[in-house]
Amino acid sequence: MTRSMLDPNDWDAFRRAAHDLLDTCIDRLEAAGDHPWQPLPDAIRDGYALTGDPLGDVAALTPVLRDTVLPFGTGNTHPRFWGWVHGTGLASGLLSEMVAATMNANLGGRAHGAVEMERAVIDWARGVMGFPIGASGVLVAGTSQATVIALACARLRLLGPEVRSQGQGGAKLTAYAFHGVHNAARKAMELLGLGHDALRLVPYGDREAMLAQIAEDRAAGFQPFAMIATAGSVEQGQFDDLNAMADIAESEHLWLHVDGAFGAWTRLAQDPWRALSDGIERADSLACDFHKWMFVPYDAGLVLIRNEAEHRATFAARPAYLAAQDAGLGGGDPWFCDYGIDLSRGNRALKVWSAIKTYGAAGLGAAITETCRMALLMGQGVQARPPMELLAPVVSNLCVFTADAALSKAQQSSLNTRIAQQLQIDGTAVFSTTFLDGVTCLRAAIANHRTTAEDVDAALDAVAAARD
Amino acid sequence: MTRSMLDPNDWDAFRRAAHDLLDTCIDRLEAAGDHPWQPLPDAIRDGYALTGDPLGDVAALTPVLRDTVLPFGTGNTHPRFWGWVHGTGLASGLLSEMVAATMNANLGGRAHGAVEMERAVIDWARGVMGFPIGASGVLVAGTSQATVIALACARLRLLGPEVRSQGQGGAKLTAYAFHGVHNAARKAMELLGLGHDALRLVPYGDREAMLAQIAEDRAAGFQPFAMIATAGSVEQGQFDDLNAMADIAESEHLWLHVDGAFGAWTRLAQDPWRALSDGIERADSLACDFHKWMFVPYDAGLVLIRNEAEHRATFAARPAYLAAQDAGLGGGDPWFCDYGIDLSRGNRALKVWSAIKTYGAAGLGAAITETCRMALLMGQGVQARPPMELLAPVVSNLCVFTADAALSKAQQSSLNTRIAQQLQIDGTAVFSTTFLDGVTCLRAAIANHRTTAEDVDAALDAVAAARD
Repeated sequence: MTRSMLDPNDWDAFRRAAHDLLDTCIDRLEAAGDHPWQPLPDAIRDGYALTGDPLGDVAALTPVLRDTVLPFGTGNTHPRFWGWVHGTGLASGLLSEMVAATMNANLGGRAHGAVEMERAVIDWARGVMGFPIGASGVLVAGTSQATVIALACARLRLLGPEVRSQGQGGAKLTAYAFHGVHNAARKAMELLGLGHDALRLVPYGDREAMLAQIAEDRAAGFQPFAMIATAGSVEQGQFDDLNAMADIAESEHLWLHVDGAFGAWTRLAQDPWRALSDGIERADSLACDFHKWMFVPYDAGLVLIRNEAEHRATFAARPAYLAAQDAGLGGGDPWFCDYGIDLSRGNRALKVWSAIKTYGAAGLGAAITETCRMALLMGQGVQARPPMELLAPVVSNLCVFTADAALSKAQQSSLNTRIAQQLQIDGTAVFSTTFLDGVTCLRAAIANHRTTAEDVDAALDAVAAARD
Repeated sequence: MTRSMLDPNDWDAFRRAAHDLLDTCIDRLEAAGDHPWQPLPDAIRDGYALTGDPLGDVAALTPVLRDTVLPFGTGNTHPRFWGWVHGTGLASGLLSEMVAATMNANLGGRAHGAVEMERAVIDWARGVMGFPIGASGVLVAGTSQATVIALACARLRLLGPEVRSQGQGGAKLTAYAFHGVHNAARKAMELLGLGHDALRLVPYGDREAMLAQIAEDRAAGFQPFAMIATAGSVEQGQFDDLNAMADIAESEHLWLHVDGAFGAWTRLAQDPWRALSDGIERADSLACDFHKWMFVPYDAGLVLIRNEAEHRATFAARPAYLAAQDAGLGGGDPWFCDYGIDLSRGNRALKVWSAIKTYGAAGLGAAITETCRMALLMGQGVQARPPMELLAPVVSNLCVFTADAALSKAQQSSLNTRIAQQLQIDGTAVFSTTFLDGVTCLRAAIANHRTTAEDVDAALDAVAAARD
């Protein structure tokens, strides 16, 4: 057999190098608590430039990956990482990605195992979310893309299938959400060509204001087509009353889309957290991520669509060279490329499947519940450390606070900003910041299965020490 | 230290299981020629259902992955896989994905190594494609999404930044391409709300017809905004004359987008193949994939945008909780989420970076050149085996032929369909089919660095044997 010029020069040397690298990876996972985020040295960054001679052999990659790549991640594997909303990852992800890279499957379609595993993942999620049998879905990079897909389906429902050939023309479609809805909804409206002004934002939880806005828009010649509910707001972890939203959507004949990027997974938690997402089963579409509160490695998001026919009608398109076959590899209809934007699709399914297969709803749910408990504990810890002060009640896994409520808003803002940066840089803990009621505040979103009560206490002590 | 409930029960057992699995993966890569696609047994598929008790421990995943997952891929790692346009994968991908899964970085933004590696990859590709310093880019799942991003930028150029708030309203935007353009362009027009009727298709290579169509549209009140050139058509591997297209785009003030899903990488090949993509450096945007002709594992695509300001103006949007910081992890501006659809983004960069770092432009280019030679050889082999017949000249890495040109078109179609399926099922070779001049024909797209002259001969002999 002629050797490919891109296969290793020496398979035994490659094998040894790969095993060495695997040990380094496992060492790092096992000692996750010893490896917080660290700033990237300029020399390392400069070394990434792809300008010099190539290595020439795959085995030579191992020391490069070990010394210059692995140590400089986002740091979200560390037990005291709570910035933005970042999941922690799972050891099952390492095994899954080894297999996925070896298989190199394309999940756009065709008849093979990885596609069937994606179906199994979607069907499991469908059941968790209480969507009916026959609902469809597709794995995507994350909730942003899932939102685009969902709103495209909503648009097609209102304008009919001819929107695909003729476009939306001058149709003045409007969508509705409460303040606090994620920016992904705005971006989706932009991409679809509807413009983000057409996303009407009304005061949080004010259903009367929403109904009034819808009525006013109809009277002015707009065509309300969708309502976007939030299950877990990114600023405060708040949940819209999904049943109330579903009632409005029904009476107003609007497509109900739920942004459940992380919050949808309260479905797996114990009460009182589970109850936060009651009503989610009534949505027309749901966007959520596996890489946040389900801890699966990046990236892996999901869109579920209640009505498979509407989903398929919005995206299916198979030119001659992709025509379905009745036997062989070209079978396996339907293909996932008919449910979204991407034709070539990597194997996101396997790492999700492995997490569910290993831990099940009970194991993942217990971890989610535990992170909510850690957020509560953090809230209590803030209250126990005046002049620290909570800036919003802890509803789910988010805790938003200021290091010193006695200062002016401007002073608090600069203090909180400085503390967040200092704790990141010294490797103690990662809070991020957000802006609430005129104050740049500290914000923890705990989607971290490694966080313990000791971590929470140590981090709050460090905030206090950095303040004083 | 309290152990996370989602970490392995026993790190030593996990380590042993992971090393076992790694050996299985490497065995499989090393013996890629022994593992063609095979049909998925019903019992294996049924076993994917996530209904039973979870495994409980990560180490228990290893036998499941080994026995029920790894053997049932798309088969595109096999030396005689030429269906659709599938890349083969690389051993460097295995190492990269191990590290990426361990790091679990989110490449949406922030200040860390993986983001800088993505910048390095984009800058390298920018240089290869002859785009100016300062041009921007972002890695995406593939050319389909890259096309959406590019056309959204083109739309903003014509309608101005207020399109993001106000939408496109009734603007009658039209785009132009020759027949043979990939279906991704139609789907992008649909998603953007412009409708695929607004993608005007003119006869292949007929520049006069294209100019006439543009003039006619302008006269009728349409607003021509973009031209889509094809570098490597998916049906025949044809290349538009990119310089001629760029001339039209310039004179007509249209955004020139090049779909170079695989064909863009002829930039790395020897002549005559390199010359096929001459003029690509004049495009306003370029979409291409690393997972096809660059052999990187799925998925990894790229969009390059000549004018960074237009790119950023189309997608940048950072709410308070993502505000850029001047120090710490929240720095690192600009963030990749400001250049595309996705906010959370997995680490596609590392596997691409590793391939370039290992093989360089020269190594990857030599492999690309070799696949073109294999396609030529296949074309010669078809001509040497009458009544087999080529249905289009072999221009790059595609070969399209019929097993028996002496039959009626209907008979050829059913024969070619049967042969493709039979060879897939018996594991001999994977051709796919397409429809050309009334005939369903056999089609090979060689993006496979393991294919040898012996593979090509053996596959054509098998076609002949299956025919007779």
